Amino acid sequence: MDKNHLRDLLTCVKSGRLGIDSALETLQHLPYEDTGFAKIDHHRKIRVGHSEVIYCQGKTPSQVSEIFLRMSKGCDSILGTRADPEIFEATKKVLPETVFHEVPRILEYAKGKKKKKVGKVVVATGGTSDIPVAEEAAIILEAFGSKVERLYDVGVAGIHRLFSNVKVFKKANAIVAVAGMEGALPSVIAGIVNIPVIAVPTSIGYGSAFGGITALLSMLNSCASGVSVVNIDNGFGAACQADMINKLAVGRS
Amino acid sequence: MDKNHLRDLLTCVKSGRLGIDSALETLQHLPYEDTGFAKIDHHRKIRVGHSEVIYCQGKTPSQVSEIFLRMSKGCDSILGTRADPEIFEATKKVLPETVFHEVPRILEYAKGKKKKKVGKVVVATGGTSDIPVAEEAAIILEAFGSKVERLYDVGVAGIHRLFSNVKVFKKANAIVAVAGMEGALPSVIAGIVNIPVIAVPTSIGYGSAFGGITALLSMLNSCASGVSVVNIDNGFGAACQADMINKLAVGRS
Amino acid sequence: MDKNHLRDLLTCVKSGRLGIDSALETLQHLPYEDTGFAKIDHHRKIRVGHSEVIYCQGKTPSQVSEIFLRMSKGCDSILGTRADPEIFEATKKVLPETVFHEVPRILEYAKGKKKKKVGKVVVATGGTSDIPVAEEAAIILEAFGSKVERLYDVGVAGIHRLFSNVKVFKKANAIVAVAGMEGALPSVIAGIVNIPVIAVPTSIGYGSAFGGITALLSMLNSCASGVSVVNIDNGFGAACQADMINKLAVGRS
Amino acid sequence: MDKNHLRDLLTCVKSGRLGIDSALETLQHLPYEDTGFAKIDHHRKIRVGHSEVIYCQGKTPSQVSEIFLRMSKGCDSILGTRADPEIFEATKKVLPETVFHEVPRILEYAKGKKKKKVGKVVVATGGTSDIPVAEEAAIILEAFGSKVERLYDVGVAGIHRLFSNVKVFKKANAIVAVAGMEGALPSVIAGIVNIPVIAVPTSIGYGSAFGGITALLSMLNSCASGVSVVNIDNGFGAACQADMINKLAVGRS
Amino acid sequence: MDKNHLRDLLTCVKSGRLGIDSALETLQHLPYEDTGFAKIDHHRKIRVGHSEVIYCQGKTPSQVSEIFLRMSKGCDSILGTRADPEIFEATKKVLPETVFHEVPRILEYAKGKKKKKVGKVVVATGGTSDIPVAEEAAIILEAFGSKVERLYDVGVAGIHRLFSNVKVFKKANAIVAVAGMEGALPSVIAGIVNIPVIAVPTSIGYGSAFGGITALLSMLNSCASGVSVVNIDNGFGAACQADMINKLAVGRS
Amino acid sequence: MDKNHLRDLLTCVKSGRLGIDSALETLQHLPYEDTGFAKIDHHRKIRVGHSEVIYCQGKTPSQVSEIFLRMSKGCDSILGTRADPEIFEATKKVLPETVFHEVPRILEYAKGKKKKKVGKVVVATGGTSDIPVAEEAAIILEAFGSKVERLYDVGVAGIHRLFSNVKVFKKANAIVAVAGMEGALPSVIAGIVNIPVIAVPTSIGYGSAFGGITALLSMLNSCASGVSVVNIDNGFGAACQADMINKLAVGRS
Amino acid sequence: MDKNHLRDLLTCVKSGRLGIDSALETLQHLPYEDTGFAKIDHHRKIRVGHSEVIYCQGKTPSQVSEIFLRMSKGCDSILGTRADPEIFEATKKVLPETVFHEVPRILEYAKGKKKKKVGKVVVATGGTSDIPVAEEAAIILEAFGSKVERLYDVGVAGIHRLFSNVKVFKKANAIVAVAGMEGALPSVIAGIVNIPVIAVPTSIGYGSAFGGITALLSMLNSCASGVSVVNIDNGFGAACQADMINKLAVGRS
Amino acid sequence: MDKNHLRDLLTCVKSGRLGIDSALETLQHLPYEDTGFAKIDHHRKIRVGHSEVIYCQGKTPSQVSEIFLRMSKGCDSILGTRADPEIFEATKKVLPETVFHEVPRILEYAKGKKKKKVGKVVVATGGTSDIPVAEEAAIILEAFGSKVERLYDVGVAGIHRLFSNVKVFKKANAIVAVAGMEGALPSVIAGIVNIPVIAVPTSIGYGSAFGGITALLSMLNSCASGVSVVNIDNGFGAACQADMINKLAVGRS
Repeated sequence: MDKNHLRDLLTCVKSGRLGIDSALETLQHLPYEDTGFAKIDHHRKIRVGHSEVIYCQGKTPSQVSEIFLRMSKGCDSILGTRADPEIFEATKKVLPETVFHEVPRILEYAKGKKKKKVGKVVVATGGTSDIPVAEEAAIILEAFGSKVERLYDVGVAGIHRLFSNVKVFKKANAIVAVAGMEGALPSVIAGIVNIPVIAVPTSIGYGSAFGGITALLSMLNSCASGVSVVNIDNGFGAACQADMINKLAVGRS
Repeated sequence: MDKNHLRDLLTCVKSGRLGIDSALETLQHLPYEDTGFAKIDHHRKIRVGHSEVIYCQGKTPSQVSEIFLRMSKGCDSILGTRADPEIFEATKKVLPETVFHEVPRILEYAKGKKKKKVGKVVVATGGTSDIPVAEEAAIILEAFGSKVERLYDVGVAGIHRLFSNVKVFKKANAIVAVAGMEGALPSVIAGIVNIPVIAVPTSIGYGSAFGGITALLSMLNSCASGVSVVNIDNGFGAACQADMINKLAVGRS
Repeated sequence: MDKNHLRDLLTCVKSGRLGIDSALETLQHLPYEDTGFAKIDHHRKIRVGHSEVIYCQGKTPSQVSEIFLRMSKGCDSILGTRADPEIFEATKKVLPETVFHEVPRILEYAKGKKKKKVGKVVVATGGTSDIPVAEEAAIILEAFGSKVERLYDVGVAGIHRLFSNVKVFKKANAIVAVAGMEGALPSVIAGIVNIPVIAVPTSIGYGSAFGGITALLSMLNSCASGVSVVNIDNGFGAACQADMINKLAVGRS
Repeated sequence: MDKNHLRDLLTCVKSGRLGIDSALETLQHLPYEDTGFAKIDHHRKIRVGHSEVIYCQGKTPSQVSEIFLRMSKGCDSILGTRADPEIFEATKKVLPETVFHEVPRILEYAKGKKKKKVGKVVVATGGTSDIPVAEEAAIILEAFGSKVERLYDVGVAGIHRLFSNVKVFKKANAIVAVAGMEGALPSVIAGIVNIPVIAVPTSIGYGSAFGGITALLSMLNSCASGVSVVNIDNGFGAACQADMINKLAVGRS
Repeated sequence: MDKNHLRDLLTCVKSGRLGIDSALETLQHLPYEDTGFAKIDHHRKIRVGHSEVIYCQGKTPSQVSEIFLRMSKGCDSILGTRADPEIFEATKKVLPETVFHEVPRILEYAKGKKKKKVGKVVVATGGTSDIPVAEEAAIILEAFGSKVERLYDVGVAGIHRLFSNVKVFKKANAIVAVAGMEGALPSVIAGIVNIPVIAVPTSIGYGSAFGGITALLSMLNSCASGVSVVNIDNGFGAACQADMINKLAVGRS
Repeated sequence: MDKNHLRDLLTCVKSGRLGIDSALETLQHLPYEDTGFAKIDHHRKIRVGHSEVIYCQGKTPSQVSEIFLRMSKGCDSILGTRADPEIFEATKKVLPETVFHEVPRILEYAKGKKKKKVGKVVVATGGTSDIPVAEEAAIILEAFGSKVERLYDVGVAGIHRLFSNVKVFKKANAIVAVAGMEGALPSVIAGIVNIPVIAVPTSIGYGSAFGGITALLSMLNSCASGVSVVNIDNGFGAACQADMINKLAVGRS
Repeated sequence: MDKNHLRDLLTCVKSGRLGIDSALETLQHLPYEDTGFAKIDHHRKIRVGHSEVIYCQGKTPSQVSEIFLRMSKGCDSILGTRADPEIFEATKKVLPETVFHEVPRILEYAKGKKKKKVGKVVVATGGTSDIPVAEEAAIILEAFGSKVERLYDVGVAGIHRLFSNVKVFKKANAIVAVAGMEGALPSVIAGIVNIPVIAVPTSIGYGSAFGGITALLSMLNSCASGVSVVNIDNGFGAACQADMINKLAVGRS
Repeated sequence: MDKNHLRDLLTCVKSGRLGIDSALETLQHLPYEDTGFAKIDHHRKIRVGHSEVIYCQGKTPSQVSEIFLRMSKGCDSILGTRADPEIFEATKKVLPETVFHEVPRILEYAKGKKKKKVGKVVVATGGTSDIPVAEEAAIILEAFGSKVERLYDVGVAGIHRLFSNVKVFKKANAIVAVAGMEGALPSVIAGIVNIPVIAVPTSIGYGSAFGGITALLSMLNSCASGVSVVNIDNGFGAACQADMINKLAVGRS
């Protein structure tokens, strides 16, 4: 509820068009819909710029499909991360337009025509095994309206593959760097280009890779400046911030 | 060394103005100066947009002062983080213009007139004890040319203090959110505004705060989108990324 | 064995109605029944106010059903946490009145009429996925005779949903706040109301959520006062303490 | 700002006594005073029942003394935890009534006559070395108006000392159980009495005591019900919750 | 190879009955049999008092059965820990006398008549779920020839069950105390009796029980003296040491 | 309070020589003396075989000296571990017979003539730096009346030094094996001899030695049987158990 | 791209045989082939001495088989670690010469005649369960052309088995020492011989073996010199370094 | 004691020149000298190729000086790592030839003329702060007789500094790569050259650098092959292995 709505409300109270008790009620309750197990937040798009992305893990197929159905009334684009085929089936039944991106396990519902993609975000991975996490970032960035360029398998074991793509990195407004094992990729990229790097550690590796902890710690301790980090395997989180940065860069141009 | 320089070099080789061995040498050695204990990188400003910031911890006062002296020949602004009074004294002797910001322990050398500050970055803290880390971010942002607004002691224990400043947050291009203990500040901010939040965990707290690990983990697991995280107490790292985002938003003008 | 019983016993000894060896035996052995694999404690209800709740995990279906059967002779209400359908089947065979709460995986045996529920405990969750743990708390609280009000999916990502329920929180004698990921919910609640908050971290999340460790640490380091914490996913433990507090509050009114 | 104030404000708007812009301003800014480095919250007493306790660690003596001075205008009792003699000296200069409790390192300012202490909270320790943490809890409980009974050095190594005090435990509304090393005290107490136990792990111990982590983990995994846990060495946090419970039990009379 | 054999060997060399190269060979190779994947150590019984116990986990059924078969030639009693039904089947095929103890998953091969059991070792558990680990200790102790008394489900949640068995504990030469969760059992026992307590943490528990780490740490930090600890779930290790102590106490008779 | 005392008490009640209330009081309170900050346990010697050893760390010099003074009335031998010169000075003032063992930082008060030392315990170290911990074990063993043989600096880096002492190990009733770094000493000893080995990890080492955690973990995972472990640097704990074992072995001979 | 190629290229530019834009292109792009999901690096053999070994875990069967197929055009020997039967089937379809080593789960493709094996590397294990990791090292060493001698099950629990093989160790140029549990094997070997020991911790063990962390830490803290360590279960990594060392030792003869 | 000595000894026994008891004695006791607190190993040089290096930390100055004095009788070169000025003073008094390398804190005693240095080992650091650890490696390598080339401050933040030195790396027989923070240096080097890289993590960094753990984990998980790792700050250990490799490479020429 922004300042203008608040002013309108107060004006109504002043003019007597709105009773004090009604105003009280309004002031204390921001609008959301209650399904019993989830509070659906139709105003979120206004507040944070895009509709809520549903985190499907830990929710039953029927919970997810009901949330999608209700949200579909208020907005044109809904995404579900960490979904699975069973959740997809349940959701497709109630919303046949829903599609399932298998590699990153994303559920996507969109109506109306696709919006034009703007700017440029590079999504890079250290290895082939990091691709599912990178695709989570890429698909969400595209759904949010950011142009994406993918650079996969450019890790430090064969560092010339990284260097031969420097010019691609340099054209981006933001870089999502996805890597497991020792997670050196974001450091090396940030040592070369002067662009915000969002580092995503992945759970790829074994033994003392500790399911991504090593990559996470490595990225947090990057000796190159301009690197920030999100949770292990959190392609979604990286996409959110990269999209915000890309839109900031594009919006003023 | 960018593409144009490379083209020039090749043109010189073609025309015979540059011998093959000289070209070879140039191609293999990017310019830096070697002090024996440190390789000074005069071209870094060109590559990453601002001069190298010296991380003083673990370096002797004479090492720091010599690095500052040498760098002062190639650039107008040098910063030293995690300095101490002894390092300041040594550096002031060789570069009298150097000043010392005590709270964030930053050494700053600047010549010529200050550049105009642009855009807006909000630096917020959860408590009073987080201020030294926040000031590290704020001073560096200002030295890099970003406008800073400070909002200190607005943590979740008295959440109304945070809410009464929502309009300040909404005007920023990037938010640096600094908090120790349970580190909930960035989550709450990112739940309200649609702007990139760089979260900085601090080592404030005791017991199971584990010197900032709890805040770090909490921030990495934020259920609000648009949060990325830097190392514990790393105000510098947050400033670097916030500055990049701010500059992207104002169009580098 | 309380002081009055002890006094009676000594009186019997004095009067000669009880031999010294018998008294010795009694003094050294408090009453419990030994099934071979478990010592059933019929006096526990007297000591701790309600009958022992059986922790079913790690016990075989036949062990659980035998414990339930034996206990049913001495008390009117038995609960089994972390049960599964197989354990339920085995127990229903010997005690047909047993019911199974699927979401929180609780086995409940009750005979006689339900006791009146008193006071008020609010059970709140950060998200939809935290509901199974919250239900463990809620069902146990109700079985113990506390009135429960559920407030699910009111986490900090959409903090207005939390604020619109402040008046609900304010009427409680105790609040059980259940959250995974960064676990900020209890801090925010305790920053608003002046009521004991029992925080329950859940294993919801991924990567550096570390199966609930992050939420646990976050809750232990709450900067708001009045928060105490139980083990990860321990809805039962939170219910026990919330029930005690609720009964203390009601009992003196 | 409670509902009645809000109603008054709206009434003033309706009647024209308050302009819309003034009302807007008021609605967006809850009252607190800004010292630059700390937001002092004069309304906190109303919200959470007692004035804010200042966490002194990480604050300079002059910051603490200024916060105390300003707060002394709005409330009758101020406490500072984790203080030191230097902070005490600085504060005594501006508020001569301030006293310093050395063992628990608490600063206390109180004006007017002491309020009557009510109810009963037992504060128990496993060993002699745990006393400073226990005293932090005890002093704060007394300052908040709860009656305290201390039972120190009753740990499980000499378990008969614990058992000879069972009747003391049984009279409490809440028990604060403070222990280091293996932290078994709260489990044993909760196995005997049916009263909320707030467990406080201490950093006492060496080697794999890990500065209190072992005691903390042990307490979180108590097999006895009715135990909740606060941070390592957090006597203050335990006192806050124990005080709330005690006040609920005595009916806030 | 003991000193007497060495003396004989040297005597043979001196007398010329043994060539120098043969002696060299003997001096460098102690007797064991090589199956390719395992070195079977027929002399171990002489060195450590009982035959090698085979740790079956990580070995294939055919590897285990072959080791059993070969060892059966040199000794009368072979045990296999952490076996499974498949391993049992494979071994029974080659050594039909083999039996399988299901609860502790122990394979036992014994020929000749059972040896008389001596002394007394108490094996106690905190709960019912700890029994498999306790049985691993108990079965091995019995196979080694120690008398065992089992006291199961006597944990601190119902501490009177423990106290009513004090006289049982007092008759033992050694006590194996098995507990999960907060692992307080060994501390409480060692606080009462003056007998070596071998503590075995179990992986029973959930959340911050961390698969037995909490119990392990708790036991290592026991404030009662006379407690030593073995690995999580290591009933075998505890049995080995308890057997040695028991045999020392009964004078190896 | 043992069974005979209990029988006497009951007999007195029966005969009327003891009133019921007095008996009640006695039954509920085992004898200890309360100094306010410590409960002194004069009966402990009867229960656990030797007087309580005072853990001095975390106690003030005056607390330690007062505990020593009071205990000196009831027993002939008192020990204080982790003492320092200041504590020694304070205690010597009240009990001039007190001596201070500097290397292991042990305070020892003994009156009457020394008791004869019996049996044999070997105390071995991996390196020279482990000696202070080993001496804590050795001095306490001697004070308890066990004969000690020291074997220092026999670690696996020069494994021939260990092997040349095998015959010394073989004569012991118990072995205390003290080692830091990778902590391999107890494994190697237990692989050679068939005697209980109490392993003591030390905090010697650096980096990933983690203050003794590596040695602790290594010892807990010994592939040789007959090893149990105490806390890091806990020479005292090892001495207690080794003394019990030694006395068991000697007592029946 | 080495210096000579670079010189040739510059010479071509000078002579006009190569246009500047073509040269630019070449200078910026080192040769690799892009399959979309993986960048295949045909020049790697030249740079690092043998062809890239494919880490199969996390890759789909069809990804692995396509990578093998493409690489088979450029080189004579390809290895795949951490493969499984499904991956083998997919690869055999496209490259029928491929074989599968089941125990170490290695895929091997080789054409042309096997190269002669040189030098000597000893691969030793502590136990039978460590063999799969040891075989990963051994098979790779042999594929790379190093002679291997296997010494399995020579751990410290039966240390005479180790000592009887000292002369085997002494003939090696490098030793790969593979062990789980307490991981003492490399320390003991390095205490005896003066040859580089590459230590490989395995995930064998349970409880506080922590999936190999204990062995890893133990090896990193070896008090014997000449030990370096690779990741848990990383037989491949140990083979790479041992092969390099072996070739250095042989190569100059 | 090598095979030839053993043969001689047996020959003497055969011929009667050596009595059986004397031979027995010799066979069981390898030569070392016992100072009480340390066993000095004069034969170590023969066994491991160079004299024992004394780890000074945790030893008193007089212990170190006595060890140096005694060892100086048997060998020409003694080193002491982690020494300090006080230890140096004590040692210089008894052995005036001793020198102290301040940066790496190494004590060096050498008599006779220096031996010729052979081969080539490169010692590289990521930053200036890593130099003390690198110097520990370099000085020890030189004392052992390996030629060293230092390449300091070539970390990935300015990766062109690393690439301009590729030809230096390529001439080495072994590379010691020293780095703190995210520890990416060894990965990048091993991705470029085909030479054994010994990685040394340093404790340089802050926050989640965790005193070198992050660098250690990162190095253990290197995606480049040919990297092995030693303990944090263990320049000595890296030098030992690098020296062995260098000597193997040189020794056969």
